[in-house]
Amino acid sequence: MSRSKQILAERADADRLVMSALATDSAVTPTAQVLPWLAERSRAHSFEVRRVPLGELTGWQEEPGTGNLVHHTGRFFSIEGLRVQTERTWTQPIIVQPEVGVLGLLMKEFDGVLHCLMHAKMEPGNAPLVQLSPTVQATRSNYTGVHRGTPIRYFEYMRPSARSRVLVDVLQSEQNSWFLHKRNRNMVVETTDDVPVGDDFRWLTLGQLAALLRRPDVVNMDTRSVMSCIPATPSAVLRPVVAVPGDTFAGAVRRSFWDDGDARHTQTELLGWLTRQRAVREVRQRRVPLSEAEADGWRRDDDEIAHVSGKYFTVIGVSVLAGSREVRSWQQPLLAPVAPGVLALLVKRIAGVLHGLVQARADAGSLTGVELGPTVQCQPVNYRDLPPRERPRYLDLVPAPGEARIRYDVVQSEEGGRFHHARNRYLVVEVGDEFPVEAPDDFRWMTMGQLAGLLSHGNYLNVELRSLLACARTLW
Amino acid sequence: MSRSKQILAERADADRLVMSALATDSAVTPTAQVLPWLAERSRAHSFEVRRVPLGELTGWQEEPGTGNLVHHTGRFFSIEGLRVQTERTWTQPIIVQPEVGVLGLLMKEFDGVLHCLMHAKMEPGNAPLVQLSPTVQATRSNYTGVHRGTPIRYFEYMRPSARSRVLVDVLQSEQNSWFLHKRNRNMVVETTDDVPVGDDFRWLTLGQLAALLRRPDVVNMDTRSVMSCIPATPSAVLRPVVAVPGDTFAGAVRRSFWDDGDARHTQTELLGWLTRQRAVREVRQRRVPLSEAEADGWRRDDDEIAHVSGKYFTVIGVSVLAGSREVRSWQQPLLAPVAPGVLALLVKRIAGVLHGLVQARADAGSLTGVELGPTVQCQPVNYRDLPPRERPRYLDLVPAPGEARIRYDVVQSEEGGRFHHARNRYLVVEVGDEFPVEAPDDFRWMTMGQLAGLLSHGNYLNVELRSLLACARTLW
Repeated sequence: MSRSKQILAERADADRLVMSALATDSAVTPTAQVLPWLAERSRAHSFEVRRVPLGELTGWQEEPGTGNLVHHTGRFFSIEGLRVQTERTWTQPIIVQPEVGVLGLLMKEFDGVLHCLMHAKMEPGNAPLVQLSPTVQATRSNYTGVHRGTPIRYFEYMRPSARSRVLVDVLQSEQNSWFLHKRNRNMVVETTDDVPVGDDFRWLTLGQLAALLRRPDVVNMDTRSVMSCIPATPSAVLRPVVAVPGDTFAGAVRRSFWDDGDARHTQTELLGWLTRQRAVREVRQRRVPLSEAEADGWRRDDDEIAHVSGKYFTVIGVSVLAGSREVRSWQQPLLAPVAPGVLALLVKRIAGVLHGLVQARADAGSLTGVELGPTVQCQPVNYRDLPPRERPRYLDLVPAPGEARIRYDVVQSEEGGRFHHARNRYLVVEVGDEFPVEAPDDFRWMTMGQLAGLLSHGNYLNVELRSLLACARTLW
Repeated sequence: MSRSKQILAERADADRLVMSALATDSAVTPTAQVLPWLAERSRAHSFEVRRVPLGELTGWQEEPGTGNLVHHTGRFFSIEGLRVQTERTWTQPIIVQPEVGVLGLLMKEFDGVLHCLMHAKMEPGNAPLVQLSPTVQATRSNYTGVHRGTPIRYFEYMRPSARSRVLVDVLQSEQNSWFLHKRNRNMVVETTDDVPVGDDFRWLTLGQLAALLRRPDVVNMDTRSVMSCIPATPSAVLRPVVAVPGDTFAGAVRRSFWDDGDARHTQTELLGWLTRQRAVREVRQRRVPLSEAEADGWRRDDDEIAHVSGKYFTVIGVSVLAGSREVRSWQQPLLAPVAPGVLALLVKRIAGVLHGLVQARADAGSLTGVELGPTVQCQPVNYRDLPPRERPRYLDLVPAPGEARIRYDVVQSEEGGRFHHARNRYLVVEVGDEFPVEAPDDFRWMTMGQLAGLLSHGNYLNVELRSLLACARTLW
């Protein structure tokens, strides 16, 4: 295919994706029916999640000699120790799950508009338990049958075949503070097949998903991550049709996503800066026995693993009884943060173009050492006893709910398959002329389009920033 | 900067880089003087490299309990064990050097043409000892002063400053079979300063470097790696000026590098294929004590570490006396391959456009699991006793020297700072209509421009393919 034909074909896809993002209702699944359907699906199944002491988890055991928490088959995942050396050195528990999972969104056109097949899915760590997941959410163990459960529904569309066409397929990281080198495939495929729709599934446009993202805890993290990777820059033909007239914030968001206007830095400058950050701020990692984390304050008793300070997270056990999963009952460990986090992106119009202030973060389990995160990413409780200069930069600028410059302020859940009630306050906050345009060395102002452009490649934007970018796109 | 201005600025740089690549001689350093100068610099210094038994290496020791080969300071690098699980499982010695080094090329315009400041540099494993290195070739230990030697010359240009402008700065991998997760910054910076030129340095155009790449063992691996990352697609204005008329191979190479014509796959298809390869072909790695490699046939005696089969590589010790290095004498281990390797890229015109057949390789020490390599990448000696079906695919198609379809066939050296006499036969071989256009699942046909385009990002092309791509560009 020639360069120009390629560009045309990908432009056509991008235009169709933009049109889906602008479709805020649909005759296929009217918006008004989505939340009632989700509530109905929660009631239709009997889900029961209860705490079980770690020492009593069926199938899981403390590995002799290391103290690692492992499944007796050696599969799924394990909780091990990680020795990290960056500016400081510490040992912490970390989830080790080297296999690559699939987060797959199946799309299909109805009435000329692309719709996504969403799954009302229970995960044991979710609150509420049922949230909107991508069509397919499968670990490698899932799809190779280690669970010995029923096959993953719709997984056949994620395999190369004549039934589907791949629009997006990129490996992206997950929580780098809690996972070692974890990556999942973020996939979007389109089909023209007649797709049978199960009771737990509904077709929604990207615009409907965006509207649901304005509510807390409806659209799960995996969906947000996949949504962030969907290109949505309209062609020159479509652009005037979908532009927002006037000097509104929504218009500024669109223009920023659409690379319309002057970015503060070129891509070469930004990639060079990130390379420098990765080179200078080394992250040395070494897997060690979990028992070695004890020296750094991590204690295990029969019930849980926790830090003596009461900070960070605990590792707990749960027992799950489910009526809509591929396996009907199981037990597993979950990582439970001790308190909610804050994920805030400060945005500012620079020479008329909206930029977000992103941070080069060197987190414990990061595969590439440094990835880009939101302006503020932390659990504030971990810093409550520290003097101000040791607290995360810009944390004090995060406003109280309701302040005028807040453009987005919604609590969302992180992955409920590994995390227990991990919830973060997602914020987009616009700062004005008083906020300096000069950024510290580990921060840079980037347009939304520059950030979105990096999402064709893995390990540039961390999951927190991807998730927040999906939220920011609802501000169109 | 607006998108269009950005594109214009980067186009102007790209055009200047293309013009440098087309400048095959220069008044600054006439081509005829380069090899005599290189020979003269070799004679001007007293270099002596001699083998020393591993057990007698000053500063290096066998770590109690692990058998790892480490420096007494814990710095520089170490030789450890790596347990690898892919389609099969094995343990091997591997070089662990987590720090990120700098390979930096300083450029400056003379008479309107960009020149590179090349260093006639000795490395203990090189054969011949002195080869053309980038301006700056520094490990992090070098530039943070762990060596306690003299400061690295010209390193100030590689730091962010008003003295230089960054054209390229990207982290790229090195030999994934021999290094664990090794990455170096590949940098190109331009200055307008008056740069004092030391006796061991000369200004050369990219075209002069290309001509030297047609000779064996002159342009070192680091230079080849950096050269491969230099964008060289001319603008629409320059293109007709520099096009090669007629149906020549050189013309086909240029058009392929310049994205001129129909590629067999779109970028979305290629990135999706690579994601799939990375997801399906897991590489699980675990650092283990070097002593555990003994079970897989790796034996250490006082002299060296070697495999009982006589295959793969040995780890030897050398003592170095040098007159032109930042430190005048030292001892170190080197990894010595037992035999030369073959790195071959099969190229084929598909619908009139030259494509190269690249391979998704899952090598032992790879950070991202799978990277792209040449069509053939191996040490043939390792397979001499295996039945044909267990030998690397396409190895039997590598022609004997002198065959007509060979477009490039030159022996080049790998990095002499870590490897001892590691030499590979680099080949570009054109195949005809008889060669199938369908590729096995782990291979894909890509244009030179598609490959070069991926080099703005790290960990797509392995060092062998980057090096070969730099060689292929000499066929313009």
